[in-house]
Amino acid sequence: AIIVYRLPWTWKCSKLLMKCIHAGLNTIAMILAIVSMVAVFEFHNAKNIPNMYSLHSWIGLTAVIFYSLQLFLGFAVFLLPFAPVHLRVALMPIHVYSGLTIFATVIATALMGITEKLIFALKSPAYSASPPEATLVNCLGLLLVIFDSLILWMASRPHWKRPPAENAKILRPIGATPEGTEVESTLTNSSNADKSDLRSNTEAARKQNIKFDEAGQRSTM
Amino acid sequence: AIIVYRLPWTWKCSKLLMKCIHAGLNTIAMILAIVSMVAVFEFHNAKNIPNMYSLHSWIGLTAVIFYSLQLFLGFAVFLLPFAPVHLRVALMPIHVYSGLTIFATVIATALMGITEKLIFALKSPAYSASPPEATLVNCLGLLLVIFDSLILWMASRPHWKRPPAENAKILRPIGATPEGTEVESTLTNSSNADKSDLRSNTEAARKQNIKFDEAGQRSTM
Repeated sequence: AIIVYRLPWTWKCSKLLMKCIHAGLNTIAMILAIVSMVAVFEFHNAKNIPNMYSLHSWIGLTAVIFYSLQLFLGFAVFLLPFAPVHLRVALMPIHVYSGLTIFATVIATALMGITEKLIFALKSPAYSASPPEATLVNCLGLLLVIFDSLILWMASRPHWKRPPAENAKILRPIGATPEGTEVESTLTNSSNADKSDLRSNTEAARKQNIKFDEAGQRSTM
Repeated sequence: AIIVYRLPWTWKCSKLLMKCIHAGLNTIAMILAIVSMVAVFEFHNAKNIPNMYSLHSWIGLTAVIFYSLQLFLGFAVFLLPFAPVHLRVALMPIHVYSGLTIFATVIATALMGITEKLIFALKSPAYSASPPEATLVNCLGLLLVIFDSLILWMASRPHWKRPPAENAKILRPIGATPEGTEVESTLTNSSNADKSDLRSNTEAARKQNIKFDEAGQRSTM
């Protein structure tokens, strides 16, 4: 779900479709998380194991709570068409940061869960005797870390972002240049403009351009 | 060490001083990591506990190996004055990404270590009975996650970066404008330039500007 916006073959899809895929995959993940949490509680109750005593459970529950908040806010602000653009622009960096942090926290929780399970489940031979199961599961844990690193790499590369020109076209009226905003093209056409003004205004336009590009790329439909 | 470049009061310091603080703190951390690893092996040997069997130890050792590589490359490329600017520019995003990923991995390793220690050390009452020690250490684990999240937030905010103008001044010849590069100011002064050329060249200058600003900000001395 995180890297939907980072796959070049999805750049041809409409923004709304990509959002729906992102939201849909996250909803499936949330449902699976709830099912697995119910299973854990049922398992603990059936085996008379106390609930919510371990650091794994504390951090895991915190992650699930933040994940549900993230999902709810994501639906309300970015998918439904009611939130104004400035709110979307303001919340987008927080949404991206929370998503990645929750993802990394979930991986850490999984690693703690694997550690617990190996200690509790392997008795003869014990975990410390390094039986084949222990080595196999340790390798799976390492793969989780590699997976986490790859996803964070893909998500944090600026050049793997959806190119701004793609959706900027939709936002801009026909006839506007693909690279500049209206502000900039108006300025360029006024030959009487003071040169220093032109430079500073073009600079202002550059900043505004980047801001709108960012908004277009990340938060509008 | 990670957030040295994100503290506004350090923006007044010279780039070299900040690099030395960053490298110095990381060197201290590396020495502490080696001391603690030696202590762990000595403890295991003294108590006849096998070494390197747990997922915690595998991921921890991987993190320390990558950390030493990171430190060595950081010294060679960014601190010593031999590496060319284009190499620094190319390696800087990898350096930043590796640093943050190693940091998050170390936190995950610590959480796994805490989980192991609580399971092994708490016997009567057991960890599952939630004695006060368990609750206290779980809280410390949660604080580690909060600490991790805060550091990653600070490190990933663009507006918490050292402002480019600060060091761009050093790189630029006297008389050049603080906001534009020479390319841009030359273009702005040539009143005979074709308008569309001016616009597209200014756009090119904008991109180059961003690139140089980034290079100036991140990789030059």
